[in-house]
Amino acid sequence: MKQTYFTPGPAELYPTFSQHLQTAMNQQIGSISHRSQKFRDLYKFTDEQLRILLTIPDTHGIFFTGSASEVWERVLFNCVEHESFHLVNGSFSKKFYDYANALHKFAHIQEKPFGEGFDYADVEVPEYAELICLAHNETSSGVQMRTNDIHKLKRKYPKKLIVVDMVSSAPYPDLDYSLIDSAFFSVQKAFGMPAGLGVWIASQKCLEKAERLQKYDNMTIGAHHTLPTLWSNYKNFETPATPNVLFIYILGKIAEDLNKIGIETVRKQTEEKAKMLYKFLDSSDAYEPFVKQERHRSQTVVVATTAKPSADVIGAAKAAGMVIGSGYGKFKESQIRIANFPATSTEQIEALISQMQA
Amino acid sequence: MKQTYFTPGPAELYPTFSQHLQTAMNQQIGSISHRSQKFRDLYKFTDEQLRILLTIPDTHGIFFTGSASEVWERVLFNCVEHESFHLVNGSFSKKFYDYANALHKFAHIQEKPFGEGFDYADVEVPEYAELICLAHNETSSGVQMRTNDIHKLKRKYPKKLIVVDMVSSAPYPDLDYSLIDSAFFSVQKAFGMPAGLGVWIASQKCLEKAERLQKYDNMTIGAHHTLPTLWSNYKNFETPATPNVLFIYILGKIAEDLNKIGIETVRKQTEEKAKMLYKFLDSSDAYEPFVKQERHRSQTVVVATTAKPSADVIGAAKAAGMVIGSGYGKFKESQIRIANFPATSTEQIEALISQMQA
Repeated sequence: MKQTYFTPGPAELYPTFSQHLQTAMNQQIGSISHRSQKFRDLYKFTDEQLRILLTIPDTHGIFFTGSASEVWERVLFNCVEHESFHLVNGSFSKKFYDYANALHKFAHIQEKPFGEGFDYADVEVPEYAELICLAHNETSSGVQMRTNDIHKLKRKYPKKLIVVDMVSSAPYPDLDYSLIDSAFFSVQKAFGMPAGLGVWIASQKCLEKAERLQKYDNMTIGAHHTLPTLWSNYKNFETPATPNVLFIYILGKIAEDLNKIGIETVRKQTEEKAKMLYKFLDSSDAYEPFVKQERHRSQTVVVATTAKPSADVIGAAKAAGMVIGSGYGKFKESQIRIANFPATSTEQIEALISQMQA
Repeated sequence: MKQTYFTPGPAELYPTFSQHLQTAMNQQIGSISHRSQKFRDLYKFTDEQLRILLTIPDTHGIFFTGSASEVWERVLFNCVEHESFHLVNGSFSKKFYDYANALHKFAHIQEKPFGEGFDYADVEVPEYAELICLAHNETSSGVQMRTNDIHKLKRKYPKKLIVVDMVSSAPYPDLDYSLIDSAFFSVQKAFGMPAGLGVWIASQKCLEKAERLQKYDNMTIGAHHTLPTLWSNYKNFETPATPNVLFIYILGKIAEDLNKIGIETVRKQTEEKAKMLYKFLDSSDAYEPFVKQERHRSQTVVVATTAKPSADVIGAAKAAGMVIGSGYGKFKESQIRIANFPATSTEQIEALISQMQA
């Protein structure tokens, strides 16, 4: 039986995915050279569609990696000489911080308990931190940070670089790239694709920092996918190494589909579906929204504490053809996570709610 | 018109690729969790099939990265404290060396002119080099190193680690993993898949070295895809970050297909097809094999100097439905490269030769 995936990534494939995959196979996209005009046209198309969708200005480049986790490493290598600063409120923002330590950066941390989020007023960035690292959406706990608060943070610290992990929320957050220096996501979340491609948006300021570290400070910024190499290839819509050409093609096509709907509508639909889910959880005796503060509740990954063991809830949904995620880490047995990505329709969310009510 | 790709990667897709892709779509492999039993079973299956195909013993783990180029960086980070040694005879072995410099390793180089290969007797490894890095097959020049010579090299320097780049030849080389510490490839070459997945084989000795560097020497071995993290996840057939699940699945299925044929037959077929190509090139006035020494001629990437501009040859082949590669770098206009991977049959190679004769 075909299941509907409400898991927070890998997730339900976008409805048009199969069709784009078929077109790609017909066009033999899996065999074309990454040094061909056909590839350059394809990269250019995906770049254009993502720029429209996310309102990315010319000051920023769009690059491809193997995953979003790889970007954690790349941005730290390329944009931090000594000190990074991390807002940590869940497992993934914590891993970003762990990566900084693993690279022997001096990593500052400001932490919130699991399930709580950051407001602008909470945050104090240490004087010598060069890069502010934060997650717009914590996939593990279902907490989000308001984009307005992220923007205010950058305005308060204009000389520091800021990077936003939007792995499990893009294209939802309306980031203002005149303020945001870098952001990244992976395609197996809200873009409804299989895993295997990371997308890294970075500004000329990030590039300048990387070049300075490499040339003048004689530091290593890594060897693979360094920002200067990515950028010099990007000028011709090429990549330093052979990328996941097939997925870059399909990402462009899905971004085009979302642009046809319009990003404002996509965001509104996301909010309406999230509202349905939270309303149900609030009113139900069997569930409770895990995140207490409404302003911190994720619009794309809804986390609920379950009265019954989560395995029972997950099992019952599965029997009805719906796959929902378990809680993360130590909350595995007491929570569920429901992805609210563009790939699942209002009707599918309604069906899930009906099932959970049963 | 559907073309047959004789390009050295991305290349012609393996004949069963579409069918495996369809099965994967039917099974919703693109949506399954990388923390599910289904994923663990899938990783285990691919691991088993690759072990059979390449005769990989239990001393070695099999890991997945975004690309083979990523492995250059990972193996240098994890297996080199101070000094690496590189046999360079083309653009890709040169890039491996460049990566070592970029990571601020002290990188020794022994270099041959483009189109020439290394024999065991040529090689002198510097005393303090910890890792010997070489390409079994240089995709840029069509030069290969005999596996016997690679094995002798390790026997002469048993205390040094050795890593073999077999990006554009695996599964052809019959490496002896009781000698070879690490090897790697990407799937868009002889495995006939689209690009987007690297495969890294590494031994417990490599792991021990990585652990020593990290724990006792307090060095950074990178943050993403470090060998200790890959290995500890691998014990449960998991990965540290979300990998390209779909491609790992298909890789296992194609490895299974190759195992059904039998690796000895696959190698023999490769050699027979290569013989046909070289025989044709030797006998033709319009082409000449670029690699003069027969023992260094690649069995998987055949490079020829063309009497006419290579663009004419490539254009004529394309009009006949066959895509061949141009020469690499400064040889772009005077050479062609023909991939001889398992995906193309004897009949297809015959058809290509006929066309090139016309």
